[in-house]
Amino acid sequence: MKNYNKCKVADEARIELHDKLALTGAEVSINTLLAGTSVPFVHSHKQNEEIYAIVGGEGKAVMDGQSVELKAGDWLRISPSAKRQFFASDEKSLSYICIQVKENSLENYTMTDAVV
Amino acid sequence: MKNYNKCKVADEARIELHDKLALTGAEVSINTLLAGTSVPFVHSHKQNEEIYAIVGGEGKAVMDGQSVELKAGDWLRISPSAKRQFFASDEKSLSYICIQVKENSLENYTMTDAVV
Repeated sequence: MKNYNKCKVADEARIELHDKLALTGAEVSINTLLAGTSVPFVHSHKQNEEIYAIVGGEGKAVMDGQSVELKAGDWLRISPSAKRQFFASDEKSLSYICIQVKENSLENYTMTDAVV
Repeated sequence: MKNYNKCKVADEARIELHDKLALTGAEVSINTLLAGTSVPFVHSHKQNEEIYAIVGGEGKAVMDGQSVELKAGDWLRISPSAKRQFFASDEKSLSYICIQVKENSLENYTMTDAVV
């Protein structure tokens, strides 16, 4: 396997990077919900923790019935079992990065995993 | 454990989210290198794949001696063993998200991990 892969992300409703970058430890998607729209279903996960970065616009997440307002600069971790749905606001689109990783899979990181 | 955690990221040179969000499958950091500066060391990893999202500015990564130009919208996967160093350009800062995950830890994702 190559030691690295690079790709360029353009403006699309949804882009998935797993195959584009040959990822082995995560799936990463980049998503935009247009104003007044939502992900059309509630979902949870079997194994995967999700990490969301809000990169533009505004909206909300509803997690196990609890609504949380979101705007650029907000980050969320969501446990696999939580039932979640994302909504753009009525006035603005909501753009976000979603990172899926297997819960409890990280062993070491930064200073304990790096070789300098 | 709570079913979710949220935090707000402000402008800082480096922010680490593992503890702020109680992450268990990744470490995520948000970084800015000022124009004309670089990460002051070359590093590789023992176990972790790194995924980089360039979110602003421009610069380059040098990976195993190979230089790759970077600007907003670029994404990279880097294998654990690759020796890497990041540089802002002389004129602009370089802002990026770095995601550390254990190589080969992802089993299922999206349709094979979701419960709808």
